[in-house]
Amino acid sequence: MEIPLKSYLTEILDRVRDRDSGAVADYIPELAAADPTPLAVALCTSAGRVYSAGDDEREFSIQSISKSFTYAIALQEVGVEKVLGTVGMEPSGEAFNELSLEGGTHRPVNPMINAGAIAVNQLINGEDSSVDARVTVLLDYFSRLAGRELHIDERITGSELATADRNLSLAHMLRSYGVIAGSAADAVTGYVRQCSVLVTVRDLAVMGATLALGGRQPVTGEQVLDPRVCRQVQAVMASAGMYDGAGRWMASVGIPAKSGVAGGLMGTLPGQLGLATFSPRLDSSGNSVRGAEIFRILSEDMGLHLMSALPSTGSAVRSIRTRGPVTVIRLQGGLGFTGAEDFLAAAAAHELTTVRVVVDMRRVSDIDAFGREMVLEGLRRIRTDGHRIAVIDPDHLLGDRRLGDGTTVEETDEVAVEVADEVK
Amino acid sequence: MEIPLKSYLTEILDRVRDRDSGAVADYIPELAAADPTPLAVALCTSAGRVYSAGDDEREFSIQSISKSFTYAIALQEVGVEKVLGTVGMEPSGEAFNELSLEGGTHRPVNPMINAGAIAVNQLINGEDSSVDARVTVLLDYFSRLAGRELHIDERITGSELATADRNLSLAHMLRSYGVIAGSAADAVTGYVRQCSVLVTVRDLAVMGATLALGGRQPVTGEQVLDPRVCRQVQAVMASAGMYDGAGRWMASVGIPAKSGVAGGLMGTLPGQLGLATFSPRLDSSGNSVRGAEIFRILSEDMGLHLMSALPSTGSAVRSIRTRGPVTVIRLQGGLGFTGAEDFLAAAAAHELTTVRVVVDMRRVSDIDAFGREMVLEGLRRIRTDGHRIAVIDPDHLLGDRRLGDGTTVEETDEVAVEVADEVK
Amino acid sequence: MEIPLKSYLTEILDRVRDRDSGAVADYIPELAAADPTPLAVALCTSAGRVYSAGDDEREFSIQSISKSFTYAIALQEVGVEKVLGTVGMEPSGEAFNELSLEGGTHRPVNPMINAGAIAVNQLINGEDSSVDARVTVLLDYFSRLAGRELHIDERITGSELATADRNLSLAHMLRSYGVIAGSAADAVTGYVRQCSVLVTVRDLAVMGATLALGGRQPVTGEQVLDPRVCRQVQAVMASAGMYDGAGRWMASVGIPAKSGVAGGLMGTLPGQLGLATFSPRLDSSGNSVRGAEIFRILSEDMGLHLMSALPSTGSAVRSIRTRGPVTVIRLQGGLGFTGAEDFLAAAAAHELTTVRVVVDMRRVSDIDAFGREMVLEGLRRIRTDGHRIAVIDPDHLLGDRRLGDGTTVEETDEVAVEVADEVK
Amino acid sequence: MEIPLKSYLTEILDRVRDRDSGAVADYIPELAAADPTPLAVALCTSAGRVYSAGDDEREFSIQSISKSFTYAIALQEVGVEKVLGTVGMEPSGEAFNELSLEGGTHRPVNPMINAGAIAVNQLINGEDSSVDARVTVLLDYFSRLAGRELHIDERITGSELATADRNLSLAHMLRSYGVIAGSAADAVTGYVRQCSVLVTVRDLAVMGATLALGGRQPVTGEQVLDPRVCRQVQAVMASAGMYDGAGRWMASVGIPAKSGVAGGLMGTLPGQLGLATFSPRLDSSGNSVRGAEIFRILSEDMGLHLMSALPSTGSAVRSIRTRGPVTVIRLQGGLGFTGAEDFLAAAAAHELTTVRVVVDMRRVSDIDAFGREMVLEGLRRIRTDGHRIAVIDPDHLLGDRRLGDGTTVEETDEVAVEVADEVK
Repeated sequence: MEIPLKSYLTEILDRVRDRDSGAVADYIPELAAADPTPLAVALCTSAGRVYSAGDDEREFSIQSISKSFTYAIALQEVGVEKVLGTVGMEPSGEAFNELSLEGGTHRPVNPMINAGAIAVNQLINGEDSSVDARVTVLLDYFSRLAGRELHIDERITGSELATADRNLSLAHMLRSYGVIAGSAADAVTGYVRQCSVLVTVRDLAVMGATLALGGRQPVTGEQVLDPRVCRQVQAVMASAGMYDGAGRWMASVGIPAKSGVAGGLMGTLPGQLGLATFSPRLDSSGNSVRGAEIFRILSEDMGLHLMSALPSTGSAVRSIRTRGPVTVIRLQGGLGFTGAEDFLAAAAAHELTTVRVVVDMRRVSDIDAFGREMVLEGLRRIRTDGHRIAVIDPDHLLGDRRLGDGTTVEETDEVAVEVADEVK
Repeated sequence: MEIPLKSYLTEILDRVRDRDSGAVADYIPELAAADPTPLAVALCTSAGRVYSAGDDEREFSIQSISKSFTYAIALQEVGVEKVLGTVGMEPSGEAFNELSLEGGTHRPVNPMINAGAIAVNQLINGEDSSVDARVTVLLDYFSRLAGRELHIDERITGSELATADRNLSLAHMLRSYGVIAGSAADAVTGYVRQCSVLVTVRDLAVMGATLALGGRQPVTGEQVLDPRVCRQVQAVMASAGMYDGAGRWMASVGIPAKSGVAGGLMGTLPGQLGLATFSPRLDSSGNSVRGAEIFRILSEDMGLHLMSALPSTGSAVRSIRTRGPVTVIRLQGGLGFTGAEDFLAAAAAHELTTVRVVVDMRRVSDIDAFGREMVLEGLRRIRTDGHRIAVIDPDHLLGDRRLGDGTTVEETDEVAVEVADEVK
Repeated sequence: MEIPLKSYLTEILDRVRDRDSGAVADYIPELAAADPTPLAVALCTSAGRVYSAGDDEREFSIQSISKSFTYAIALQEVGVEKVLGTVGMEPSGEAFNELSLEGGTHRPVNPMINAGAIAVNQLINGEDSSVDARVTVLLDYFSRLAGRELHIDERITGSELATADRNLSLAHMLRSYGVIAGSAADAVTGYVRQCSVLVTVRDLAVMGATLALGGRQPVTGEQVLDPRVCRQVQAVMASAGMYDGAGRWMASVGIPAKSGVAGGLMGTLPGQLGLATFSPRLDSSGNSVRGAEIFRILSEDMGLHLMSALPSTGSAVRSIRTRGPVTVIRLQGGLGFTGAEDFLAAAAAHELTTVRVVVDMRRVSDIDAFGREMVLEGLRRIRTDGHRIAVIDPDHLLGDRRLGDGTTVEETDEVAVEVADEVK
Repeated sequence: MEIPLKSYLTEILDRVRDRDSGAVADYIPELAAADPTPLAVALCTSAGRVYSAGDDEREFSIQSISKSFTYAIALQEVGVEKVLGTVGMEPSGEAFNELSLEGGTHRPVNPMINAGAIAVNQLINGEDSSVDARVTVLLDYFSRLAGRELHIDERITGSELATADRNLSLAHMLRSYGVIAGSAADAVTGYVRQCSVLVTVRDLAVMGATLALGGRQPVTGEQVLDPRVCRQVQAVMASAGMYDGAGRWMASVGIPAKSGVAGGLMGTLPGQLGLATFSPRLDSSGNSVRGAEIFRILSEDMGLHLMSALPSTGSAVRSIRTRGPVTVIRLQGGLGFTGAEDFLAAAAAHELTTVRVVVDMRRVSDIDAFGREMVLEGLRRIRTDGHRIAVIDPDHLLGDRRLGDGTTVEETDEVAVEVADEVK
């Protein structure tokens, strides 16, 4: 069987292909000469499967999309405290190349504007790092995020440096406020080289998925970044990634995203997937016209809007059955706060008449710390009510099954329990 | 068994009770005289269960939290087009009582600042509505959202009207730009009365949960608002609900929220729950000091950060088993995009050797339109590959089981299939 | 002989009459209906002679030109300290109806924007004054400045009040910051009535001349305002009177000026004259198109630019002659700093060989305090050098002729001295 | 006789000497190390006499005061059109080192902020000029303005260049908008060298006097700049020379002025004189504390406020006398608009009964084009009324005495006329 997602993505490309509004970026000669026609889309799932369509092998420069990853790497390498001392987290409501420094601190307001990105680049590999060493660190990280060795297009670097007055202006201003310590020329060179890394939509989808999945690269399985780092990066992308239209974007599309002036657009859906598109023509805010439209369609069709997660109509409690001297509570699905509360509420509501109570965890697909704690606390309270408790937990979702009072819950796997359920 | 959530919430209150920084709002006499000590927290689950602790029966005026609901009601009643013609969706980066009109259109930049809220209030019940009729509509909606009849504290209304110069200034400015048509005095009176509705943290938790759950009030079961309305309201809360600290709030707490000057704070976690706190002392941005701290703790402890949803480590494909002439694919958990893709990927990867293939939906807890479409398309492709397909779907999660080619998938419930699984 | 100035002014009107760009103010119904064609100019000299041409008897509402006079009256009545506590003196660089409050103090930045003018209006006749009493004070002052009894056009007042949302917005904002204490409605009514006073260009030229001449109304001779008040009003007019184009105006025209939305324009040249024009069509900044052009021509033709006063090529020392035992120093023209220094320098440079030295003041047209002090000090030093000194000062320009050492200079009027000069 | 002005100035220094608030500029190492105690004042009259007191031989770097002169030189060399295409003329209300570019054009708003000054520096000597050649042009002009050969302190240049990030930021931003074409480093170097020219207060007073006197250096007599250039420079100094306090400065001091961060302060009084002070401690706006105080005292004592010119109480018409067949009208003082109008009004008011009318110009100290035209037109009209006219004009103030009708007025010098007057 062929998986239908590729054809689904191809259909979407066909729907937007004819849109030819917008224009390629004109302030960097190398980009101004770019072919405006390529069109591609990719998505990468939490299982590391990548679906793509269109010009999905075409390489283009990552440009400002790199800001998300360099911010992540800075948080990872030097810690949130130091990063927050250098750059803020508020939306600027201004264009990408505005100065936008905070009143008192003179920090750039966020890492998604150029001033912020230049300041963040300087945090990598220490103040005394050479540009080369700094870029090497970034390129290594970017490559691990993408799962393949990425390269810098030095022609683009050269082209951008030739027209870098605005960025040099920002860098000198940052230096004048002591936000960066290195030379302005080095700061801009480091930043421009970071922007000149070549990627495909498939790379970006995987890199985005790594952010969405708490830092674990879903293809290679490597834990590249800490979950808290990824959480913060996505929050900042949500509020400031799409420049001066962040509010509208989050209301209509609802996917944290970051665009690049070469035409790339990368999005993340926390816990679920990474997305990417490529189409060089940009709107007046500097975002890819067809890319943004593809995001809109995907969000609508696939229900990816961050604010539209529909409640699970099912319960984490699959069944509570009593046969003879035993009551079996079967749990299912994910056990975060919501699932754990399902269990607690059901256990409290059900009049448990048997001495023995068994909780069957085999259909639980996932559990987090709060869910585990609540399930164990529920078990302790059931025992306090006078019952004998046990769990069926072959995957050790409950860890060492130790309760708050220091005792450990018994494990069981009785066939009788099985049958009780299946006969229904 | 007693559910341990109440004691968990009580513990949290104890952790923040001693914090006495901040001050009660002083610009409204009635609020300035308020007791600063009350402290309460509540949360409401998707199943409509409400947990609370502290002064959870204490009523206080809803104040600016009403902005979220009035915005929702306006979207519901007059439609997104007309609402967007009146008020924008971008963060202002400014204090709540700033003018913050957009350059060209003179629309208030968002409905969470006073100017925007006054303009939105005027959209309710038609331009020609009396203030009384307008407030009656709002109060009716608020009451349905809370699940009980709410009331207005006329003393607070009076106290606010006596010191309403700033709001009158905003209203006159809106009138001068044609954003509102009614008299400035009426506009402010309507807005102030909307702010004077009395609520408890339990009310706010339920009202917030209704937004989080796509508009379905989880206690009464009433579909009060459309899902798209709720999506938009939460997106705007995320970007503008906490005034000039929206970026930091979303990065550190990650829960769309709205605060009121009387000390209330209301949050929503899409698809999961509503939360609310009450503590009158405010920080310099006008947000409840202890309330914000409780949100921070809840987010951290319970893993509620919108950007930190960890990927499900389980698969929607519970098992693929072959016994004799039949292969049974058992699905589980929620089937949105992620789960559906799990199924498609597994079906594609598995070498199906039997003529008969049965997909067992009984452990699927939830499904959405895209999930349904993808499962049916997978079934069609399996059949195209030469298999006979059937589903076990007693809850009709697949609807009428009609495929893209117009045929219908057979339903089955063979015991043989059951046994194949359980023996394992 | 007929004075040629009227024909000169008539010629200027002919040069600009065909300019029909701009439009009458449209936001006040009564003004929107105004005839755009009237055209008039007037100027009033320090001697109180008024020259005018065109529709110089046509009355129109004074509008914002009143701001200059009400500011002057406030300074006169309540003192500079209290006025500066209410309104600043900096240019705003913004349109007339912008809020433009200072950051810390919330004072309107200057009295020429509406917010500032509303605040200043409230200073007249005490906080507790009724609007009627306040307007009566203003109207009385305006009438004394114009030299005839002026009246308010109540139709214009009514028309403006009907569309006063923007001003009401400003007034409520000022109230919310405690800048004004009275009701917002009263503040706006007082301000609008002040703006509805009817004047002709001849009135405005005389009123402006009074400011230019240190507060002495040149026609009636009444000292209506203090010199320091007039100095401050003109300085503020120079920096903020022409709204957002103050810098360009002062560079190209160089005459402190204030415009009104009904088409009036009033200017002052310190120490010399008042000017006024009337032509209702306004440019996008709200200034009369033809009025501004007339000012430009007058400034150019008549050398009225404040920054272009050419140095006097003559000296205040007309001659130093010795005949027999006496040296006569004849002074002429005005004796401010420059003339006095001429005298001192000449006296120091000349080798005085006679015992007697006489200073002839009869050709001195004017003297100020510094000039008097320097002349007397010069006389004292000449005497200290061993000479006998006397003055010819029939007009008592040197006052009581008392020197710094307490002695008094002798006065003389010898014919011999006369002859010494005239024979040459 | 010793002229008492030096002792007067010395007294003023004594009055402010003890003021020790403020601090020397600390962002340029060479300035931070400066001795804060020097104190000096100088003024230069229209006759080129310079009075000074205190450390009047002490050299210091001209710093931002150079902005006025470089602006003047640019206007002189490339013309007002081109200069206005590069830099505006509006006050910025911001600190000296703010970017302050105009919205649409991206021109710096005025030449007194650093961005504007850098842009103006680039206009000197052509776009392709080397920095050395450009600075040579400026230094030559500055030297002619001061009347002695000035020099650059290269240590200060070096010190400023070492901390020039802010200026480099501005220069790169200007380049990015195409406002300047040369390299950012060259632009800043040129500007910094211009700021490092060493001057004394006596130099600055003379240079300022040259601006005040229409471009004629009063000591050397050289016409260095055009009158219109000087007019524009002084207008811009008035509105933007004292940074964010321009309005207050013009209201309280009333002398167009420009300050430098090394402690210099230079002012001009159009038509009268140039002033300068030196005291290194600066207030928070970057203006010399004691320097500003000296300006305040001088303005007050000497009546130098631009807006406080008192009207001449004398008339330009000294007398109108009739003896026998001739009427003699004797004029005196300056004959600008005001004096000419005096003559016309007096001639019109006086019933001329004699055939012969003689106008005696010998006591007229000055005349401008408008004055000359009006006197001649008055003469023509007197003749038209049937009189025989003649003038006594040994200094040819009336030029070729040609009237509007092409005829020429007769000149006379009759003794009889003399006697008629002097007998009185």
